[in-house]
Amino acid sequence: MTPTHKVYLAGPDVFFRNASEVMRIKGEMALEHGFYPSTLAEDGNALGGDTPFEFGVSIALANEAMMDQSDFIIANLTPFRGISADIGTAFEVGYMRAQGKPCFAYSNTGRDYYTRLTEDYYAGGPFEADGDLTRAADGLMIENHGMRDNLMLDGAVDRSGGAFVAQDAPGPDLLGDLDAFRAVLAKARAFFDQAA
Amino acid sequence: MTPTHKVYLAGPDVFFRNASEVMRIKGEMALEHGFYPSTLAEDGNALGGDTPFEFGVSIALANEAMMDQSDFIIANLTPFRGISADIGTAFEVGYMRAQGKPCFAYSNTGRDYYTRLTEDYYAGGPFEADGDLTRAADGLMIENHGMRDNLMLDGAVDRSGGAFVAQDAPGPDLLGDLDAFRAVLAKARAFFDQAA
Repeated sequence: MTPTHKVYLAGPDVFFRNASEVMRIKGEMALEHGFYPSTLAEDGNALGGDTPFEFGVSIALANEAMMDQSDFIIANLTPFRGISADIGTAFEVGYMRAQGKPCFAYSNTGRDYYTRLTEDYYAGGPFEADGDLTRAADGLMIENHGMRDNLMLDGAVDRSGGAFVAQDAPGPDLLGDLDAFRAVLAKARAFFDQAA
Repeated sequence: MTPTHKVYLAGPDVFFRNASEVMRIKGEMALEHGFYPSTLAEDGNALGGDTPFEFGVSIALANEAMMDQSDFIIANLTPFRGISADIGTAFEVGYMRAQGKPCFAYSNTGRDYYTRLTEDYYAGGPFEADGDLTRAADGLMIENHGMRDNLMLDGAVDRSGGAFVAQDAPGPDLLGDLDAFRAVLAKARAFFDQAA
């Protein structure tokens, strides 16, 4: 299949021990679905800097350039080092949403944000009623919108024309499993075929 | 002072028990620095929906509309329910950055991301060397760019012309203290005065 669009593959996968292999495999899977994967090498943005801070900024600018050149995003929003998605990936979904590009996402857990917040972070409570709202003992509001994560993320995916696949990974590799990624790739393919 | 620009005030402050009071005070402080605060009431975006999900989406769309109408963002990136900033706020910094608008941020802790990650999340290790990188026992890379949070956030603030004030709150109200907010408001005022 001749690729039709370029996809920005976002997620904490870049932090994995096997990051380069994972990104290669995800890129091949994208190509199989007719999408060019955006990669640093292809886009040729220079990384470097005199300080760790400037080196970090060069990575940020390279990622922004790749997003500018991509037609849509597929974000790995599996909870990362806590109950929510990787915060850099959340930034990137916002960045693509502001450009009016379709935002697709997946998560390797079927447990929604409310469940992770109340069971994992707050360990079951106690909670209190505050009018129509629910609050934890620290006074913070408990969101319960039936969403996979913060409403800015779920809202952007929903209203951009994208899709959000959230399902439990079949094995123990919660962050790296690619079943949900494969499923959302198919949804992206259907989206662009229908738009064509 | 006649306000010169409109600011989008982002942060987990909306989850506080005294959210409406905090947002009123932050709005007044913005006005004292010559900035109109963006508010739901002023911009008149309708909130509602037949389901909790649709209600959540209506909030997301209202926030997007307010960002579209704002000239810049001041984001409360104090760690929220974990070691990183609120994920919805991170989305919003990305959204404004993609529009080329100045991104200002503050955090009520002076401890950088590397410290929070290694001391708080990983409780001091063990860590291992992997070439030039450092990894935790779970295999994930430990970022150490001398930044306050993920490099996409720090990079956007730095390269958009904004400023990031990160300092320990003087009292126990880590999420709600406004000293750093006041400091970054002054930096935003100086930025727009210089640009004028």
